[in-house]
Amino acid sequence: MFQPTPASLPPKNPTLALRQPKGLPVHFQPLNPLQFILRAAEIYPDKLGLVHPDVKDPVSYSFAVWYGCQRIQNLAYALIQAGIKPGDRVAVIAPNSPLIADAHHGVLAAKAVLCLINTRLKPSEVAFILEHSGSSIILVDHEYVRLLPPNLKVPVVVSKDSGRPGDPYEQFLTNGRTYSQERGWPGLEYQADENSPALLCYTSGTTGRPKGVVTTLRGSYLAAVANAYESRIHQESTYLWILPMFHAGGWTFPWTNITLRTVDYSLIWKHFLNSAVTHYCGAPTVQIGIVNDPAAKPLSRPISAIIAGAAPTASLISSLEQIGIQPIHVYGLTQTLIQYGPFTRNYTQPSWAALSLQDRSKFMARQGHAFATAQDARVVFQPKDENDTELVDVPRDGKTVGEIVTRGNIVMKEYFRDPEATAKAFRGGIFNTGDLAVMHPDGAVAIVDRSKDIIISGGENASSLAIEQELASHPDVLEVSVVARTHVKWGERPHAFVILKTHSINKWKGRHDAFSNELKAYAKPRLPGFACPEWVDVVPELPKTSTGKILKTDLRKIVAKL
Amino acid sequence: MFQPTPASLPPKNPTLALRQPKGLPVHFQPLNPLQFILRAAEIYPDKLGLVHPDVKDPVSYSFAVWYGCQRIQNLAYALIQAGIKPGDRVAVIAPNSPLIADAHHGVLAAKAVLCLINTRLKPSEVAFILEHSGSSIILVDHEYVRLLPPNLKVPVVVSKDSGRPGDPYEQFLTNGRTYSQERGWPGLEYQADENSPALLCYTSGTTGRPKGVVTTLRGSYLAAVANAYESRIHQESTYLWILPMFHAGGWTFPWTNITLRTVDYSLIWKHFLNSAVTHYCGAPTVQIGIVNDPAAKPLSRPISAIIAGAAPTASLISSLEQIGIQPIHVYGLTQTLIQYGPFTRNYTQPSWAALSLQDRSKFMARQGHAFATAQDARVVFQPKDENDTELVDVPRDGKTVGEIVTRGNIVMKEYFRDPEATAKAFRGGIFNTGDLAVMHPDGAVAIVDRSKDIIISGGENASSLAIEQELASHPDVLEVSVVARTHVKWGERPHAFVILKTHSINKWKGRHDAFSNELKAYAKPRLPGFACPEWVDVVPELPKTSTGKILKTDLRKIVAKL
Repeated sequence: MFQPTPASLPPKNPTLALRQPKGLPVHFQPLNPLQFILRAAEIYPDKLGLVHPDVKDPVSYSFAVWYGCQRIQNLAYALIQAGIKPGDRVAVIAPNSPLIADAHHGVLAAKAVLCLINTRLKPSEVAFILEHSGSSIILVDHEYVRLLPPNLKVPVVVSKDSGRPGDPYEQFLTNGRTYSQERGWPGLEYQADENSPALLCYTSGTTGRPKGVVTTLRGSYLAAVANAYESRIHQESTYLWILPMFHAGGWTFPWTNITLRTVDYSLIWKHFLNSAVTHYCGAPTVQIGIVNDPAAKPLSRPISAIIAGAAPTASLISSLEQIGIQPIHVYGLTQTLIQYGPFTRNYTQPSWAALSLQDRSKFMARQGHAFATAQDARVVFQPKDENDTELVDVPRDGKTVGEIVTRGNIVMKEYFRDPEATAKAFRGGIFNTGDLAVMHPDGAVAIVDRSKDIIISGGENASSLAIEQELASHPDVLEVSVVARTHVKWGERPHAFVILKTHSINKWKGRHDAFSNELKAYAKPRLPGFACPEWVDVVPELPKTSTGKILKTDLRKIVAKL
Repeated sequence: MFQPTPASLPPKNPTLALRQPKGLPVHFQPLNPLQFILRAAEIYPDKLGLVHPDVKDPVSYSFAVWYGCQRIQNLAYALIQAGIKPGDRVAVIAPNSPLIADAHHGVLAAKAVLCLINTRLKPSEVAFILEHSGSSIILVDHEYVRLLPPNLKVPVVVSKDSGRPGDPYEQFLTNGRTYSQERGWPGLEYQADENSPALLCYTSGTTGRPKGVVTTLRGSYLAAVANAYESRIHQESTYLWILPMFHAGGWTFPWTNITLRTVDYSLIWKHFLNSAVTHYCGAPTVQIGIVNDPAAKPLSRPISAIIAGAAPTASLISSLEQIGIQPIHVYGLTQTLIQYGPFTRNYTQPSWAALSLQDRSKFMARQGHAFATAQDARVVFQPKDENDTELVDVPRDGKTVGEIVTRGNIVMKEYFRDPEATAKAFRGGIFNTGDLAVMHPDGAVAIVDRSKDIIISGGENASSLAIEQELASHPDVLEVSVVARTHVKWGERPHAFVILKTHSINKWKGRHDAFSNELKAYAKPRLPGFACPEWVDVVPELPKTSTGKILKTDLRKIVAKL
């Protein structure tokens, strides 16, 4: 492993606090997530802060080296040196790696706004975001230079992800080092207004052009507190970065980090077994990959899996629990996971312990209650027309479908330079998520579907999610997605796309029709007639977004042609 | 146990949120500790919220009954009904009991300010506080009616601590019930300004008249978050109220509660062994009582003890750990523990595990680093004169003595109606605690003494705390306190007051002089000559404040007469 040279070591006993803005009352400190990492560097300077092991040039930094002085502070000063002013946007295009981890803190320390760009976007989308965000500088990983448009008018800093001298990004950090050594943290100043922007992340834009979600320093601080508390992440925890950090600032998980450039299940298992991992996040599809990897085996100590993106099925919960992974189901609103991460959490009730796995998993699949520092998560009737802004909660009957609306400190501030979209999202003085859900008698929210995911079959509303939950419990099914397909008699009927488990592929080889019949028969006693799949296709893979969510829009295009 | 009547049960599925103030942005929710209890009632309605077992009329309330609707909401409406307006002060004089627990939430729900009065004060002090705070109503436990001045001009509500019909306090709650049932939580409104006062607690006034410490809703919220996170208090935790709640709002511990009216060690052990207690707080003197109680024995599951008020000695740490109690040493600044509770915490380092108990306890006795949501805890040179407001940090050498200064969200807002004292406390734009300390190379703060606790012996500064730490390690010593006594030759010399352990009382009966010599001989190799006690008195008890801190002022009066 790389050892920093003496010159790059932080000074002894640095002051680990930025300068206070003038004029603030003694009892008021503007909330800022930088405060957490400075505390870590102060209290646990020698603890590993960032480990990036699975690359040609592995690096590992203690909190003192990473946060305490050298890298993050150097980056802040280098940005200022490059002309970045408070409020300017700094674009970052990178997989999980020191560059993007540094930027989460260094950009805030320069009072600038971090604009994170999804590495799976097309060049045209990247060009749109760079233009719309008005980013003043671009920090990019060498693998993604190909995404950049030609003739850029702003400076570009490339990281070879080596951490070694000669790497242009390391050279850029060196520009800041003189200032770090002369002025240290007190040469930088806390942002006085805690409601200033922290991050700018663009929606993936499946419908229309991407929108820039703005989050604040206050919101990031409170979301990070909630994540640490709810996931029980403490000083002895090790968080494995499977979730891409560019996805909503890694949902504000700001602790000890092992960074993986890509989702590689054998690497993940290597770290589960050898790196004292205690926590990770991932969508169900990633979790399915983990439990079905050949290296999977019962763990000697528990790991907590924070699951979001879709509800975990009973079979997934069972598979995770069998090997000692404890699922925590959180929900960040389909559009707004891109904000701060989780907004609700499924809170296990003591009484569930007595239930069968099937029954318990139905409770666990609910999205649950508002997160520790979140405010309302309500389900209201959808507006009758454009002028209808009254919010009326649906009854708590677990049946009546409404829209999830929310407000509070961990809701986005606005869409960047898009007052029209902002006004639409905040119609009625609340954030309208577009997610459809019911409210159970115990106050738990349960998503039914996004409006377009409802299958209207013979006049009945069939939830594609509910159908998927049932089909996923079949022993040969690895993953399943269900969409509406036009039907002459019933209007619409469910069409299921299924990936078989590895050991079941041979079993059904050349007999997909037989499997289709078996799955339909399996569904019959478990679902109402209108919700049973009319068609079943066995497929080798499903189209997915960069964050592992299934692209139902693509599946709908397929069935539209049938 | 008392069961609520059907009429007193909360309605099914109440809305557990107060009305939003008009005009707030969607992304902004004013922080308010009420949010935690409403979440608890929403997510765990049937969980025990408050248990008050050791009285003639025991009661126990679920979160739904306690928080969800009935008691807290009734109290808020009853106060409004009695003419209480936003910002008015509501005085409470009570031991740990449902009255004071209700008031922590119900008073805030009425947008009023909770003025907590120490039950161990003299009637003249209580009269001063009632007058100075301008309290508009007094809620008082029957045992403390005797503290009230005659001819009060404000209404008084007495609780018999019975929870039964006919109890005047229960009757008062009934006044609010009609409104609770008609309007529920949405009939009340959140305070729009999170910097509004929440609590008003008076200093004990050992020097001059008591001062009213004002804390805010924002500060209470952030201090409660930090307490829950740092102490790892979660939904399955049970907190035993040994610490008086009137002491700084119970340091904002807002979770499942078992309330004890008095510190009774046999009751404490009953709950340790039978009530699934997981957490409690107490000063070292209380901890000493706990480990030395005849009922003390190794626990089958660990309990976390949050220790404040003074540093735990090596022998105390060892005694606690031997029976399975995990000490967490926190520090709330001598004057300002009355604010929100802990401001710093001792963070155990992995490397300490290899140390001997004696060496480890020296590290554990340090006050440590700033708390999760606290900001700076610095040690600066004391001002040369009144015009010297420059803050210069002492070197991190573990030797140079300076004053602890702090700022941030969990520092008090002001002294109530006392701009002069406020200005003095905030001199230099920071809160001056008056506590003397050194800063260790690792950034940990360690209190030396309050200025007046330093013993100037032959021109050398001897820390009475350091002397006490050493003497407490003698096997016959239960508790010890050291003060300065005038000495012809050396100016001052240490005088130690010692309580013997139960099993050592007979051993030294009639031979206190011999014990005195033995303790002096014990000290000699362990302390510098100027710090060795010149006099040792064996005493049956030590004078203490209501919160268990030793009253050195009283000991000084004793030695002044010798």
